[in-house]
Amino acid sequence: MSNQTFPELKNDLFLRALRGEPVERPPVWMMRQAGRYLPQYMELRRKYSFFERVETPELACEITLQPIDELEPDAAIIFSDILTVPQALGIDVQMIPGRGPVMGNRIETEDDAFSVFAEDIAEKLHYVMDAITLTRKELNGRVPLIGFAGAPWTLFCYMVQGEGSKTFDRAKSFLYQYPDASAHLIKELTRATIDYLAAQVAAGAQAVQVFDSWAGLLSPDDFNQWALPSLIEITASVKEVPVILFAKGAWYALERLAFKSGAAALGVDWTLSPEFAREKTAGRVSLQGNFDPSHLLAPPAEIEQMTRRMIDRFGVQGYIANLGHGILPHIPVDHARAFVNAVKEYRSPDSR
Amino acid sequence: MSNQTFPELKNDLFLRALRGEPVERPPVWMMRQAGRYLPQYMELRRKYSFFERVETPELACEITLQPIDELEPDAAIIFSDILTVPQALGIDVQMIPGRGPVMGNRIETEDDAFSVFAEDIAEKLHYVMDAITLTRKELNGRVPLIGFAGAPWTLFCYMVQGEGSKTFDRAKSFLYQYPDASAHLIKELTRATIDYLAAQVAAGAQAVQVFDSWAGLLSPDDFNQWALPSLIEITASVKEVPVILFAKGAWYALERLAFKSGAAALGVDWTLSPEFAREKTAGRVSLQGNFDPSHLLAPPAEIEQMTRRMIDRFGVQGYIANLGHGILPHIPVDHARAFVNAVKEYRSPDSR
Repeated sequence: MSNQTFPELKNDLFLRALRGEPVERPPVWMMRQAGRYLPQYMELRRKYSFFERVETPELACEITLQPIDELEPDAAIIFSDILTVPQALGIDVQMIPGRGPVMGNRIETEDDAFSVFAEDIAEKLHYVMDAITLTRKELNGRVPLIGFAGAPWTLFCYMVQGEGSKTFDRAKSFLYQYPDASAHLIKELTRATIDYLAAQVAAGAQAVQVFDSWAGLLSPDDFNQWALPSLIEITASVKEVPVILFAKGAWYALERLAFKSGAAALGVDWTLSPEFAREKTAGRVSLQGNFDPSHLLAPPAEIEQMTRRMIDRFGVQGYIANLGHGILPHIPVDHARAFVNAVKEYRSPDSR
Repeated sequence: MSNQTFPELKNDLFLRALRGEPVERPPVWMMRQAGRYLPQYMELRRKYSFFERVETPELACEITLQPIDELEPDAAIIFSDILTVPQALGIDVQMIPGRGPVMGNRIETEDDAFSVFAEDIAEKLHYVMDAITLTRKELNGRVPLIGFAGAPWTLFCYMVQGEGSKTFDRAKSFLYQYPDASAHLIKELTRATIDYLAAQVAAGAQAVQVFDSWAGLLSPDDFNQWALPSLIEITASVKEVPVILFAKGAWYALERLAFKSGAAALGVDWTLSPEFAREKTAGRVSLQGNFDPSHLLAPPAEIEQMTRRMIDRFGVQGYIANLGHGILPHIPVDHARAFVNAVKEYRSPDSR
């Protein structure tokens, strides 16, 4: 548990759903809920650069709280970025508007990969921990605070590719050309992630989510070799709070993740039907997801109907309503609100 | 059948595998086998623009034959592009090196979508038919010639998004904002594709492949609504040659495609294990795929081993060895050759 003293938690619905305890309705939050669809976020975005926002605890706290004030979901997630860890490992990350992350010094050679060592991660990223502690206090117990990190395979993708990509072909090619150097890099990223999440929990995070955003680029065999072991190791290392694993696109790994990873919940994207996800996970974990972010462009009445239908299919227990990926920048706030409120007002089909 | 007289086919392995007839080994070809990894292609690329290459039958023929001469796979696929159909429907397509396709006049409004009508497609794209007839003659019966088209959903993605994208969020949003206009556009794209494939077959194509490259962006429900009906309609319209459907990323639709689409074969990407694909398709169709294109960066001896293992798992009958997506530009020719030759020299495990 945290080293700090924090205000008492008033809404523990999210934590109960994560632990598989009985709930009256599913909790709801949205990936990237602190983001560009919010006018109040856009205002700060005009004033401060991306890394100013990430590295200034007061700004990260303010941004984290914006959707809590605006939409009142059942959990907050700290405003930050998965690329803080590559930065702490010596990669120069630039965030270029309209293009996304670009690395000044990507991992190009075996030597580059072998030269990466995970040291003093928590110290180098102290601003994230400061933001978590501050936000946990400012939340004043309204909802729990989620910390997060990128999974080693996904961080590997960015560090080797050097930028965002549809295929991350350079990163994947590196795996097969230099398996030993790749294994070293994945190992160091795993160590870094373990230290990082431990520090986040010590700073006040009440749950953590691990984003393996590019898991779906791997074949099942490659996922088992390059992604799964580090996910298991990381999850096992987090002892004090529940872990949510979101291996986007890795539908084929759902069963293995449910039975082997030790996660409290698994995130699912919208290409999985609720029935498939429940069947494969067999009640071993809670599930989180999986509303298609593009569906938030539909008229609000339709959003509400689709949201109710999603909960009908997942069931109320052991379920956290969320999107299947981050909210898109051009979603009207009222549409996001329609989604959140439809979950909060949910009643089972027989009591409607 | 074709209106022309063509040389007799000497290697019918690919067509036999498509029809599910007994074969001594699987046939092999590679998606984008006429492409940037070949030095002889790069030479033509320096001299002629993308659309000069696509629209000049002699160039398209020469490019189609390059991998046949170099690697001797068991099928040729006409050099062309799925965006010829949007072009014929009045969309201005530019191919920008390093960025991919960009549309000068994307579908932005409901009116834009309703104004699209499929007319005289075969006439407007006569250069593709000319290229097919010429190439079929020049092939001189060495291997069968495959024609192809993009699936309506995938063409819709490009026409509405206006460019390539990781998420095609504008295209997906359009579906939910303007369902009637979207349905009209999909219907016209389906009509255009039916006419286009019929003309390709009349011109000499001995099989056709339909690429639904962005099927995997849709939820199962959306796929059933927006993609599947047109795939079924198109497949049913092609009566004289076998159809291969490749709905990339739509693992959840494999069973339905096998039982409902009427396709001779289904393409599968590398996120599906051979065992999963065989189980879901239950012998109803042949399967084509699914070597991870990034694996072609591994050393040749490893490529050969992985290729043999893939065939072991799919089985020799009702199977066409291929990649799970197009070959990458930076693959050494010898690595592509190692893949092709490993298939051609395949022997079952008990006779090795």
